[in-house]
Amino acid sequence: MQGNMRAICKTKAGLGAELRELPIPKLGPRDVLVKVKACSICGTDLHIYGWDEWAKARIKIPMVFGHEFCGDIVEVGNLVSKVQAGDFVTGETHIADYNCWQCRIANAHICENLKILGVDTQGSYAEYVAIPENNAIVNDKNMPPELASVQEPLGNAVHSVFSQEIAANQVSIFGCGPIGLCAIQLCKAAGATKVYAVDTNPYRLEMAKKNGADIVINAKTENAAQHILKETKRGVDVFLEMSGNEKALQQGFESLRPGGSAAILGVFGQPVTLDITNAIVFKQATVRGINGRKLFDTWHKVKDLLASKKVDLRKIVTHQFKLEEYEKAFELMKSGNCGKVVLFP
Amino acid sequence: MQGNMRAICKTKAGLGAELRELPIPKLGPRDVLVKVKACSICGTDLHIYGWDEWAKARIKIPMVFGHEFCGDIVEVGNLVSKVQAGDFVTGETHIADYNCWQCRIANAHICENLKILGVDTQGSYAEYVAIPENNAIVNDKNMPPELASVQEPLGNAVHSVFSQEIAANQVSIFGCGPIGLCAIQLCKAAGATKVYAVDTNPYRLEMAKKNGADIVINAKTENAAQHILKETKRGVDVFLEMSGNEKALQQGFESLRPGGSAAILGVFGQPVTLDITNAIVFKQATVRGINGRKLFDTWHKVKDLLASKKVDLRKIVTHQFKLEEYEKAFELMKSGNCGKVVLFP
Amino acid sequence: MQGNMRAICKTKAGLGAELRELPIPKLGPRDVLVKVKACSICGTDLHIYGWDEWAKARIKIPMVFGHEFCGDIVEVGNLVSKVQAGDFVTGETHIADYNCWQCRIANAHICENLKILGVDTQGSYAEYVAIPENNAIVNDKNMPPELASVQEPLGNAVHSVFSQEIAANQVSIFGCGPIGLCAIQLCKAAGATKVYAVDTNPYRLEMAKKNGADIVINAKTENAAQHILKETKRGVDVFLEMSGNEKALQQGFESLRPGGSAAILGVFGQPVTLDITNAIVFKQATVRGINGRKLFDTWHKVKDLLASKKVDLRKIVTHQFKLEEYEKAFELMKSGNCGKVVLFP
Amino acid sequence: MQGNMRAICKTKAGLGAELRELPIPKLGPRDVLVKVKACSICGTDLHIYGWDEWAKARIKIPMVFGHEFCGDIVEVGNLVSKVQAGDFVTGETHIADYNCWQCRIANAHICENLKILGVDTQGSYAEYVAIPENNAIVNDKNMPPELASVQEPLGNAVHSVFSQEIAANQVSIFGCGPIGLCAIQLCKAAGATKVYAVDTNPYRLEMAKKNGADIVINAKTENAAQHILKETKRGVDVFLEMSGNEKALQQGFESLRPGGSAAILGVFGQPVTLDITNAIVFKQATVRGINGRKLFDTWHKVKDLLASKKVDLRKIVTHQFKLEEYEKAFELMKSGNCGKVVLFP
Repeated sequence: MQGNMRAICKTKAGLGAELRELPIPKLGPRDVLVKVKACSICGTDLHIYGWDEWAKARIKIPMVFGHEFCGDIVEVGNLVSKVQAGDFVTGETHIADYNCWQCRIANAHICENLKILGVDTQGSYAEYVAIPENNAIVNDKNMPPELASVQEPLGNAVHSVFSQEIAANQVSIFGCGPIGLCAIQLCKAAGATKVYAVDTNPYRLEMAKKNGADIVINAKTENAAQHILKETKRGVDVFLEMSGNEKALQQGFESLRPGGSAAILGVFGQPVTLDITNAIVFKQATVRGINGRKLFDTWHKVKDLLASKKVDLRKIVTHQFKLEEYEKAFELMKSGNCGKVVLFP
Repeated sequence: MQGNMRAICKTKAGLGAELRELPIPKLGPRDVLVKVKACSICGTDLHIYGWDEWAKARIKIPMVFGHEFCGDIVEVGNLVSKVQAGDFVTGETHIADYNCWQCRIANAHICENLKILGVDTQGSYAEYVAIPENNAIVNDKNMPPELASVQEPLGNAVHSVFSQEIAANQVSIFGCGPIGLCAIQLCKAAGATKVYAVDTNPYRLEMAKKNGADIVINAKTENAAQHILKETKRGVDVFLEMSGNEKALQQGFESLRPGGSAAILGVFGQPVTLDITNAIVFKQATVRGINGRKLFDTWHKVKDLLASKKVDLRKIVTHQFKLEEYEKAFELMKSGNCGKVVLFP
Repeated sequence: MQGNMRAICKTKAGLGAELRELPIPKLGPRDVLVKVKACSICGTDLHIYGWDEWAKARIKIPMVFGHEFCGDIVEVGNLVSKVQAGDFVTGETHIADYNCWQCRIANAHICENLKILGVDTQGSYAEYVAIPENNAIVNDKNMPPELASVQEPLGNAVHSVFSQEIAANQVSIFGCGPIGLCAIQLCKAAGATKVYAVDTNPYRLEMAKKNGADIVINAKTENAAQHILKETKRGVDVFLEMSGNEKALQQGFESLRPGGSAAILGVFGQPVTLDITNAIVFKQATVRGINGRKLFDTWHKVKDLLASKKVDLRKIVTHQFKLEEYEKAFELMKSGNCGKVVLFP
Repeated sequence: MQGNMRAICKTKAGLGAELRELPIPKLGPRDVLVKVKACSICGTDLHIYGWDEWAKARIKIPMVFGHEFCGDIVEVGNLVSKVQAGDFVTGETHIADYNCWQCRIANAHICENLKILGVDTQGSYAEYVAIPENNAIVNDKNMPPELASVQEPLGNAVHSVFSQEIAANQVSIFGCGPIGLCAIQLCKAAGATKVYAVDTNPYRLEMAKKNGADIVINAKTENAAQHILKETKRGVDVFLEMSGNEKALQQGFESLRPGGSAAILGVFGQPVTLDITNAIVFKQATVRGINGRKLFDTWHKVKDLLASKKVDLRKIVTHQFKLEEYEKAFELMKSGNCGKVVLFP
């Protein structure tokens, strides 16, 4: 497609971003062009916007960022066969090559040549975005765009939660951002007998309660591990780390019973200090690192859970803005007083 | 304890049983004597009452039968240390030796010297029953006896259901007796997106609906496998065989999608005919035989599920009788027009 | 490529096949043309040659059959990107669409639109064969062709054996055809403490011994299950069914200890009779149906096992013929007095 | 039994220990008295001997230490039923109560009231030691005492190695003390295609080679992680941490491929610093803490592996001393220039 589009672009090293007029992306033979209906803000985008150490090392400017989105396919490359123009799709963020050793053993989420949309390639804070056909997940036409976009982080939660045994078990979740909130809903849907949700932000703890947490704990005002150990006696069966905060990691492991299991989705800005002997070894704990979504098992589960109303994404999305109001949206994100924030181009 | 008690006793080869006055059982050093508050009827008891081929081969008369029960400990053997007089307990039916090779690798449910209460030893259709202290599971004092007794079959369902991946999956359950009904509740509690319940008895199908089945199918009036395949397109993710019926086994496997898993709890009176090539091999199915309850992991889960109200046993128990009305109770059981039937000594 | 080639063709309903002159296959855009160096005979080919009930129902004549092979790529379709002319490759037999629901959850071996080379499409008993590039597994140039061809059935054995826990365990293998023989080698390489191999053919039992079986049992002259139970006391930990014979299936389960696991790779011509209550339910057995090879995890393992000399395929291949001697080769196969038989076009 | 015995006793805070004359231990009703034939030195004993921070915090003096041993039962408590006088036994070090929540879900190795022989109770560096009958593992009478004693650390290795998938995989083992050496043998027996062994002591690297390591790396003279990554390209499939050294932990995770698994048996004197984001999260690694031996599954495997000669403990034991030569033995242990060191009372 010819012509220009508006896009939020990281144009210089430093805080912030610019709304720019840019050419609509060109398609490779197996790509599709999506007219973006909604795009949502991830913690990663906040790192790029704020230009922290990680962003400096990873991002090449100028760059359109953003990777959570949905929209209609308006054009397809000449070898595309799996989707077609008119399909309403959500984007899978991880661009795998489907040819490397890992992809060939069903580990496309840790592809040896993995690229991340809006991090390594031009992203979705724009009127149009180009993605490989493999990354276009077809939605029901009636799905509201602000929810369709949020399926991607829901997928992270599905991957984390369903790697553990949840039914008839107690769970602690450290970090109540959108993925943590999704995890609360998923644990309750999967039969957790009790969910402890921990955060330091009262707004998010309030949301945790609304999303079904049995007990919410403000780690700023009390020792979360002690609280959980007191209530459970022996600790929770499952610990989900969804904050990327060192203290949360430490307390999360403290909250875990011997023989329990942990999933770590949080990304830590730097190496952490951990009493691994007591946290993992003596506890005979099983710990799983979680990266992205299983391709495409996680997406099938996301679809089925939404279709059967086991999860309600309306409880996750709290704010909606026009694309050009992105500065207000990022300010809000920085405050933490929000769930998922969605932009409309 | 000295004295006599009333008990339902299999006194002769053939249909039926007698209410008899018998001495209260003697205790071994690690046994406890339980004053029975409630005892419930299992399909196995119906086999013994009706004196079928299996019963003829296995049961030595005279024999007090019955094995699902609860009651208060009134006396303990001189080496008992884990429970005490006054405890309100439910009986675990499988008497393991905790010393054989299987017991030592945590497989007490398939102990090499396993004895079954009320089958290999004097049972619980009586005012008093003696069991090893290991088999006495302590209840909350406030638990209604008619529910406390039914935790044992609930345990079978827990063992079957939680051996499979249920969350975000579709399940077919063939056989809607009390264990099948418990399984329906458990699958829903554990996040199944859809539960198909199959039986040939309209009463039980009605109960299946009340216990939460999304779709109930009368296998007498239609082909259950075809019905499920039509709705699911590719078949269910999990099949639970809880009927002991050959046709149910065959259709259950037909209802299973390639790559799915099955648990078989049903006991078949004789060898079955199965198209194992299509049912299991080409389907790359995983099949698990289920025997009893995991000792004592299953019991912990039973307790936690009841305490957190994930399961409601009141929906399983439909009829209650005095012990002496046992003939009426067994007639009812034979008709199939009931859920769990409980006797009160 | 233009021109003709020789191929073994099933030209009419009934026993046998014909050597014919046929056009070299045309390529689709993602296909490759392989000049066959060696092709080996599978049990399936014997069914087609002998024209049994299964063959009648499945095979559409005229048809070039055969599916185990290796050779050099001599031409590639215009969209091929993963392999190139000059590569020495072995064929994966299962042609998946890599787009269906099963393929997208990493179950390409049970693809919803699976086609089998030489069964549903033109096969490899020929000078040339066309396959999708995804099905071409690149070999080391120095691998002897008669071994390269046999990697495909080795993959079946890898899939079966490595689905079970083998190290420090005892294993019974029923059926000592080439796949059973590979399984013997694999079990020994993976730390089985004892391998019991069962067959009815003395030639194959002799081969079982040469391939490392600790104990071989002729099921024609003694009760194999009884023999194994007598030696092991409680039964083997793992049972591998690789014969497709009903009696083997029954005795294999008898030979399995409670709590053990079984893999069934054998294909049974018709429904079997099985005492499932004692074989699976009371035993708390875990049973896995095995279909093909995991794509492509199994192939990586095949490569690594051969490269590290954990498996020696020279012990599996017993006879080599020219392609035109196929009738002699099939006669030999029918007798069972052989391991793997390889043809050279 | 009345009378005195010689024992190595920690009599005061500080380096060293004393050989003392002490009363033979008294038996509880379920204990057995073992006349020690051989006792071996564990790293834990070195901590106690050297009186480091951990020892100061944990050990109550005066205390007979030592916990790896074998010997003959010479007396049994009045309720003992599982073993008898005359049995030649090896001691399981972990004294569980077999009654707590963890024990009841088959986790006796992480019993809520766990006591460790020679750490929390009087140990086995003595002519006699008293242990619960449950902790007495019966040996074949012909087993050499210096090997029988070393089954306990072999059990640690079995527990670590067999929690991972080893067959057809590559493994890195950091730490070549006796448990690391056992792990090397086990990995090779279980079908590892390549074992990389890492240590900083040339003596132990030499032993690693003798025990079957394919490649040994001296982490003092080169970067072990880089070496392994260079050889494997993508990293090993399995990483076993058996050193308790922070740098080894860090490099071990570096050596692990994405999607791989790790077992951590090493005990770290203090909290470690780990780049958990790259070590575990992005790698989608699975990490298992390993504590003791699974009771008693691990012991069965130990027995079967030794009986089938999959493991040769003679390659682990390098030095033997009389009990009274303990100071020389501890000096040797401190140097690291030894495998397992055994004392004879």
